[in-house]
Amino acid sequence: MARINDRYLDLAAGYLFPEIGRRVAAFQKAHPSARIIRLGIGDVTRPLPPAVIAALLKGVSEMAEAKTFRGYGPEQGYAFLRELIARHDYRSRGAEVDPEEIFVSDGSKCDCGNIQEIFSPEARVAVADPVYPVYVDSTVMGGRAGAPDGTGRFGRIIYMPCTAAAGFLPALPDETPDLIYLCFPNNPTGAVASREELARWVEFAKRKGSVLLFDAAYEAYITDPSIPRSIYEIPGAREVAIEFRSFSKTAGFTGTRCAFTVVPRDVRGRDGGGREVALHGLWSRRHSTKFNGVSYPVQLGAAAVYSDEGKAQVRELIGYYLENARLIRKGLEPLGYQVHGGVNAPYLWLRTPGGQSSWDFFDRLLSEANVVGTPGSGFGPSGEGYLRLSAFGAREDVEEAIRRIGKLDAR
Amino acid sequence: MARINDRYLDLAAGYLFPEIGRRVAAFQKAHPSARIIRLGIGDVTRPLPPAVIAALLKGVSEMAEAKTFRGYGPEQGYAFLRELIARHDYRSRGAEVDPEEIFVSDGSKCDCGNIQEIFSPEARVAVADPVYPVYVDSTVMGGRAGAPDGTGRFGRIIYMPCTAAAGFLPALPDETPDLIYLCFPNNPTGAVASREELARWVEFAKRKGSVLLFDAAYEAYITDPSIPRSIYEIPGAREVAIEFRSFSKTAGFTGTRCAFTVVPRDVRGRDGGGREVALHGLWSRRHSTKFNGVSYPVQLGAAAVYSDEGKAQVRELIGYYLENARLIRKGLEPLGYQVHGGVNAPYLWLRTPGGQSSWDFFDRLLSEANVVGTPGSGFGPSGEGYLRLSAFGAREDVEEAIRRIGKLDAR
Repeated sequence: MARINDRYLDLAAGYLFPEIGRRVAAFQKAHPSARIIRLGIGDVTRPLPPAVIAALLKGVSEMAEAKTFRGYGPEQGYAFLRELIARHDYRSRGAEVDPEEIFVSDGSKCDCGNIQEIFSPEARVAVADPVYPVYVDSTVMGGRAGAPDGTGRFGRIIYMPCTAAAGFLPALPDETPDLIYLCFPNNPTGAVASREELARWVEFAKRKGSVLLFDAAYEAYITDPSIPRSIYEIPGAREVAIEFRSFSKTAGFTGTRCAFTVVPRDVRGRDGGGREVALHGLWSRRHSTKFNGVSYPVQLGAAAVYSDEGKAQVRELIGYYLENARLIRKGLEPLGYQVHGGVNAPYLWLRTPGGQSSWDFFDRLLSEANVVGTPGSGFGPSGEGYLRLSAFGAREDVEEAIRRIGKLDAR
Repeated sequence: MARINDRYLDLAAGYLFPEIGRRVAAFQKAHPSARIIRLGIGDVTRPLPPAVIAALLKGVSEMAEAKTFRGYGPEQGYAFLRELIARHDYRSRGAEVDPEEIFVSDGSKCDCGNIQEIFSPEARVAVADPVYPVYVDSTVMGGRAGAPDGTGRFGRIIYMPCTAAAGFLPALPDETPDLIYLCFPNNPTGAVASREELARWVEFAKRKGSVLLFDAAYEAYITDPSIPRSIYEIPGAREVAIEFRSFSKTAGFTGTRCAFTVVPRDVRGRDGGGREVALHGLWSRRHSTKFNGVSYPVQLGAAAVYSDEGKAQVRELIGYYLENARLIRKGLEPLGYQVHGGVNAPYLWLRTPGGQSSWDFFDRLLSEANVVGTPGSGFGPSGEGYLRLSAFGAREDVEEAIRRIGKLDAR
């Protein structure tokens, strides 16, 4: 009988969100009339911007005529989209990124995990704690995590705890990682990194020979002009960093699917013989072999995000969610809750009251206020005692959730 | 400096199709007025069926309104699509497949490669020769291929040569593979497998404990009712086979992107301790962790393929391409060419005339007839001396290509 990948058996029983889904469904079944408000999963709720809709419709119409029909596109994405990204997301901010360094894909979640394939099975991976679970689970699946230690941690993963005292910024690790996952604005804590903080990581990566895997999926939520939106705004980052971006949280593409990854030509690894190898060619080979490009109408829709109209509509969308975040902070702090994040970020990181565990507070919020959050402990041991709230809800739901939470004791 | 995956350096310099693209571009540059006809890459040219267009437009419109907007869908695909697939593609043909055994994805190319991740890094892989290059390249990338032997083969891959004498059907291997890639109707040879032939493989897999990775991307081209369209039409296949399907060649989705993979609950592997593990749960975990679902409007478009209107339009589309295949056979055979395939399959497998090498004949066809084929040797050593022609062109291009080839000596 064929041998399976045993590392899959080391994974925690379920991915965090299916477990939340299970508990919510069970509660709803027991209380069919309860109107549950979901501020748990980081999924958007506002419709696509009109400029994107118009472009999608145009794309679909083109697929209806032989003359304008498109079959396989370039695996790396159409040049029209890659050029817009390079110009608007990078060059306009003084970051040097070439269109050919941009790889359009159907999601950042895929890319964040798949990127490990171009590195050695022996590569050491560093992650923050708490952390987006996909980084860890992908590391386990790829055999780079080592053995589970019984506390939810793995022997070969390097953990970088993020505490309230340090503003939820990970400390530089003592060990030497090959790969370092960083995510700013952070999922789940909502923390952001200053220019100095990012420069510290670029310097560390250069000194240690590490590659930074920089997840910037939430960069659109940065309104403070002093905070970099891209790692490439830091001098030298082109030599040590790969950046992941997505249209999901920027333009509401969670159900439409478009993202991209930047692999600069300057970032290198070494092979078993010690020779330097550009990572760009390796990722390009993976992308051509194991991916077949993003749906053409969807790429046209993503391109519309960069039109003047599209930009204005996206700004409005982001403003809507950021106002939700502000309302949650403003609503909960006077009740005695300790609230982090939610500024320059769509996530709020709530200290559970009275020392409750994350799952206990999750259950209480679900049963007493019919509000769904995400238990902080689901993001790693250092997330215990926290709950993540997302600002992606509809305004009236956010307001109602705050009212309901107000009726609980903040005990 | 981070260690790379050295196995990438074992890959042949370029993926086959980029190399073809390079030669065609160079020829076009040198002969700007030449009107090149592409019968090389297997890409469709006809527009999407009207029923699919209507569904795509409906899906996009729903994304424009808050009330009907869809964010993240289920990673495994919407139930509406999985149920249609189970009913129309399987149950209607007497094959038992449950909707929950169907995993909707953005492409078969991705799935064919990614499926290896749930198996041991030590798994032995068997492939036909000639073969769709993605199976081999994914095996190399995943470290399961062993060392390259200098002739384009790899030490741990089990090759199953397909010769004209055996009707291009692979022989059962002497060794014991963990995984066996089979593709019928075949890319590149156009060969199809009878019920008896497939039963022979199911029996072999059961006896040896292998898993069949059955690529049925071209099943829609089967018009002979005696030929199975799915491996699950063979009794016992649910215990040993995973099947890959795609809307790409069925309904013209190469630029729209939708496919699916069937992992029956009955197919099992074993872990390092010898315990049996259902593969369904492993693939489900991978899909949830490293994939985020297919674009909602695209899934709605795929569902329209199963409406009465959609089915009739797809039949017409397939009929168009099959008529192209018939015209190519009918046009080339009287010229002295030995032509295989092209019946129940969209690919024709042409013996190169006068013992020319595949690339020599490719170059001659390009320079003298301005027609692009795919060199058989690009699909493996046993493809040497053949050229693949695809029937996916526009009718007038196919007719013109036949006229031009007619002017060459079939020498």
